[in-house]
Amino acid sequence: MPEPPRVLVVLDPAVPFADLFDADACSRVERVARWKTPGSAYGADALPADELAETDVILAGWGMPVLDEDFLRRAPRLRAVLYAAGSVKRFVTDAAWARGVQVSSAAWANALPVAEYALAAILLAGKDAFGLREHYRSRRSEEGLRSDFRHVGNYRGTVGIVGASMIGRRVLRLLREHDLERLVYDPFLSELEAAELGARKVELDELCARSDIVSVHAPELPETRHMLDARRLALVRDGATVINTARGSLIDTDALTEQLAAGRLNAILDVVEPMPSPDSPLFTLPNVFLTPHVAGSFGNELRRLGDSAVAELERYAAGRALVHVVSRRELARSA
Amino acid sequence: MPEPPRVLVVLDPAVPFADLFDADACSRVERVARWKTPGSAYGADALPADELAETDVILAGWGMPVLDEDFLRRAPRLRAVLYAAGSVKRFVTDAAWARGVQVSSAAWANALPVAEYALAAILLAGKDAFGLREHYRSRRSEEGLRSDFRHVGNYRGTVGIVGASMIGRRVLRLLREHDLERLVYDPFLSELEAAELGARKVELDELCARSDIVSVHAPELPETRHMLDARRLALVRDGATVINTARGSLIDTDALTEQLAAGRLNAILDVVEPMPSPDSPLFTLPNVFLTPHVAGSFGNELRRLGDSAVAELERYAAGRALVHVVSRRELARSA
Repeated sequence: MPEPPRVLVVLDPAVPFADLFDADACSRVERVARWKTPGSAYGADALPADELAETDVILAGWGMPVLDEDFLRRAPRLRAVLYAAGSVKRFVTDAAWARGVQVSSAAWANALPVAEYALAAILLAGKDAFGLREHYRSRRSEEGLRSDFRHVGNYRGTVGIVGASMIGRRVLRLLREHDLERLVYDPFLSELEAAELGARKVELDELCARSDIVSVHAPELPETRHMLDARRLALVRDGATVINTARGSLIDTDALTEQLAAGRLNAILDVVEPMPSPDSPLFTLPNVFLTPHVAGSFGNELRRLGDSAVAELERYAAGRALVHVVSRRELARSA
Repeated sequence: MPEPPRVLVVLDPAVPFADLFDADACSRVERVARWKTPGSAYGADALPADELAETDVILAGWGMPVLDEDFLRRAPRLRAVLYAAGSVKRFVTDAAWARGVQVSSAAWANALPVAEYALAAILLAGKDAFGLREHYRSRRSEEGLRSDFRHVGNYRGTVGIVGASMIGRRVLRLLREHDLERLVYDPFLSELEAAELGARKVELDELCARSDIVSVHAPELPETRHMLDARRLALVRDGATVINTARGSLIDTDALTEQLAAGRLNAILDVVEPMPSPDSPLFTLPNVFLTPHVAGSFGNELRRLGDSAVAELERYAAGRALVHVVSRRELARSA
């Protein structure tokens, strides 16, 4: 049996420790590792030099400092950073790769709540449940409903998924249980891969023109900024719904707001860029369901991230391979 | 090759034929059967005696008349009723069984939209997306959000499914993709069957007391009337959500409305009994998402029912067994 690894938890002090690691997660850590200050974490600015010098594994959350030469010098025994959050790009360095530090990410666990939020949004949008609620609220009667809403429903409608990211793929997988045609746009996806995901690969203009629901799941990159611009939004069918649980920058907010205010499109928006000002019509339009960036890990879902990192620690301590390890090559390609 | 069956379509005149049977469905009928008036249907009061006398198969929708002695006398060749809707209980008779008329129902197809509506409702309720939207609408800022909503989320919350009906089972199946604990109450379900459905069987009081979300999927029976009454609703946890996509009579509306008005519970209601009066607080309460009985087949989803019946007709014409045939024994047990 090898020596239990020495663990240090590094976390932005604004994030309560228990939000990520509950009592059960702490017991699991204690069973396989040594930590000097059980059940607590240090912020990047307050790392104790003596503990850091002896640390084999960092269990990290938001606020993980950059693994630069200086940091690595202060942590000479560091072998793994187990990140209880998504993208590790911000803190991983060539120096860390050169030192052979393994990095594991809970991006997979972060994808689940976003995909399930998008799924729910797609199913309710396909039914125009939000519109039906508003209609019922204003008319207070079911009269005329079946004829006014003849064209809604989740039978053979078309959903366009923009971006075959981890989240986009998960949404496509979940949609297999439902009777909706699926289109996918992703410049890096082959037709065969699209077919394996149960979708048809199309160009973005065609996706916009043919979908009853457009859900964006692309990374934030200079090339993806305003990929849904005024021209493409104008291609989208009357009465269709645009869903954004990804990044606000993917959509030209002014152009979308114009279409929404005109009542031509509907939207379910969890992210908007720029942040809506207090007088933004996005707050009040009856055809907009606006939430404050909560589709990702939120509330108790943060514990899924903590649990993922702790499971990686258990594997590390047992001498097994990490499951969610990030490779240098993958990282270079990702957003 | 046997003679193609002679088909008559019987449908409530208030329901447009094309809502159930689109052009594609009509071509499929024409390929395997003879019908005198393609693409149209008769109401129960206007059945042409000569056509009915020659009819082998009735393709039926809402408004199918009772298969009593008189009707069966007028339809001496009738061998099958393919019902493009749910429960056939209203029109099937002992006389029809005695005559050996096969009856097929699209209840399975009717279960799909209800289950997907309930799934979406559960996932958004688990996240308190409706509450977050209202919060964002009234505060116009994300400030304080993460601490105010620490306890929401779809990680290891508990969903209670009341009734292992076709719909309840489908909801449980769909929930397998999500990280929610599942409880089920159904007096006719064994613990083993519950486990096979991925749920734990509990009594209704325990389900109410332990669930973050209670979703009812029971049949409407004298025994199920107000199964969620004032006492049981009081057992439900503060901040929990009650979902009803089944029958309004399952819940004591006055008792629920009281809890909702007090802000103690949230609700997603697609059915309410009695129908909400125009001044009902259910229309305006921010913690209530009220829709006008649309979770079932609605809009284009009616075509799934038509397609199901047409697929049965294709099987009948080819001399194959019907897939969705209702047995006398099943019918006696069902709601």
